[in-house]
Amino acid sequence: MSTPAMPKQMLALTAEDTMLQLTAKRAQGERFAAPIVVANARHADMVEEQLHAVSAAAQALILEPVGRNTAPAIALAALAAPGDAPLLVMPSDHVILDVPAFHAAIEAALPLVEQGWLVTFGIDPHAPETGYGWIRIGEEISGGVHRVARFVEKPPRDAAEAMLAAGDHAWNGGIFLFRADAYLGALAVHAPEMLTACQHAMTDARRDGFRIFPDADAFGAAPLDSIDYAVMEKAEQVAVVRVSMGWSDLGSWDALHEISEHDADGNAHAGQNDGEVIAINTHNCLVRSDGARVAMIGVEDLIVVASGNDILILPRGRSQEVKALIEAMKR
Amino acid sequence: MSTPAMPKQMLALTAEDTMLQLTAKRAQGERFAAPIVVANARHADMVEEQLHAVSAAAQALILEPVGRNTAPAIALAALAAPGDAPLLVMPSDHVILDVPAFHAAIEAALPLVEQGWLVTFGIDPHAPETGYGWIRIGEEISGGVHRVARFVEKPPRDAAEAMLAAGDHAWNGGIFLFRADAYLGALAVHAPEMLTACQHAMTDARRDGFRIFPDADAFGAAPLDSIDYAVMEKAEQVAVVRVSMGWSDLGSWDALHEISEHDADGNAHAGQNDGEVIAINTHNCLVRSDGARVAMIGVEDLIVVASGNDILILPRGRSQEVKALIEAMKR
Repeated sequence: MSTPAMPKQMLALTAEDTMLQLTAKRAQGERFAAPIVVANARHADMVEEQLHAVSAAAQALILEPVGRNTAPAIALAALAAPGDAPLLVMPSDHVILDVPAFHAAIEAALPLVEQGWLVTFGIDPHAPETGYGWIRIGEEISGGVHRVARFVEKPPRDAAEAMLAAGDHAWNGGIFLFRADAYLGALAVHAPEMLTACQHAMTDARRDGFRIFPDADAFGAAPLDSIDYAVMEKAEQVAVVRVSMGWSDLGSWDALHEISEHDADGNAHAGQNDGEVIAINTHNCLVRSDGARVAMIGVEDLIVVASGNDILILPRGRSQEVKALIEAMKR
Repeated sequence: MSTPAMPKQMLALTAEDTMLQLTAKRAQGERFAAPIVVANARHADMVEEQLHAVSAAAQALILEPVGRNTAPAIALAALAAPGDAPLLVMPSDHVILDVPAFHAAIEAALPLVEQGWLVTFGIDPHAPETGYGWIRIGEEISGGVHRVARFVEKPPRDAAEAMLAAGDHAWNGGIFLFRADAYLGALAVHAPEMLTACQHAMTDARRDGFRIFPDADAFGAAPLDSIDYAVMEKAEQVAVVRVSMGWSDLGSWDALHEISEHDADGNAHAGQNDGEVIAINTHNCLVRSDGARVAMIGVEDLIVVASGNDILILPRGRSQEVKALIEAMKR
């Protein structure tokens, strides 16, 4: 359902709102300033419309001329923010079902953030996921906030099982909280070339209202790197706040089935589903249709997606294999 | 895929040709006169176009104002044919894979037909089908042609299994061969009211070229009945010619899967399939799409049909349950 022109962030996969709108709404209220949004330039109008529709207009919309991974993107935002402002960094394609738990974790982390710590959110794991980064929880610094003992990149299955069993590891949720100046300071130490490139890109940026167009040549010179590699794994004062908040990165159709509401037969076909679904003797299926009427009789554990002129059918538990399909289609 | 406006006969389900075209082509050659076609008046143009496309123009196209089941429909055709002509009566939605075997059965039956026998084609059974009528084979009259000992309506499962095991039963294929005057004579004895109604309908018919429009009031007065009940089960000289010819009445999607060509993985998705199919680690599935692209990963034994705005998914072996679906949709 997602395409380069209409990425997952812009789709309403879990509710009436799109993933971007749900992300913006998680940071609404008196504790939050208006968001700084970093996006691909081609999505500018769509981002603006979607945020406007949920009364979450951005204070700045930074439009990347090219993607350079997360570390430079966050640097642009940090350079646009007041230096001492705590910056809550959220990918806009994650699900968080328990927003109060998320807010409580933010509050727990804020005192350390104000002292200059870089904080990541450690999701209480419930499965030996090999597709996520993991974090080994170190000593507690203050209530619920711990030193990061170690980052573990996507582990093999047995390692994931061991970490899950040990109980002292969390999933790296890819959500961060730090002062803008703390992040930029860490960049100055661990990725100075990236910081310089981003500073030039913002100094020479074109501005149009609250839209900011970083200079393409300068930004293109920034090394491609993730915040995890460039900063979090190298910096000194790195903490993790443990949280259980119904988080998912919706990395697969299985993940969507897992967080969706099910009917008495275990089927998930409500939500933003414009096509009619008729299910007879059908159990534990996920059906998504943007228009076609889908009739199922006597099937179990299937994922069925009808989008435009495409129909996808696969068993639950195998949705990682969609990647093989995309490869086959490209060939 | 079939609708009142576009019934199964008009669809290309098994080959490039439609079921009607395949039926007409089975009766082409020097042994056959041009067909007499009995159809619903609303399908007149479509029937004509489809027959024209395979050089099988009808000698007469009899357009029923209403459907009165098979016995009156065949009476109309018999009244339009030369009285002593052997009439081969074929539903236009059956599959016959082995046409030479069919032709050989016709030749075997013709001598008895010329003597006035009513002949039905008895399909060598290969499964305990409860959806078909069965025929108990009686004594042999001439090579391969036997008296009908008994007609058995759709039997319960145990009876079907017993008949299959006994080896002296055949499926009633719904295909008949008799002289037109022999059929009309049997009607005069066993359904005189029906014969009178059909005679009036043809006497008062409107004719337009080779199109014949039987009088609606007269035809509407004919009793509703099947040829089996009205004639075959009652007449004296009734014979069955046994034949094994790859016959199917395509009564379900399972039946279509059974007679379709399969690829090395047992999947049937060639034929008249306008939509692209991408199958990865997929086995023994039937896919039909009139346009949508269907991608399947890691599924087995599924029937998937995409037609217009509708998608149907069910396991093989359960396609009789489509009826339950249609009922649910009507409700």
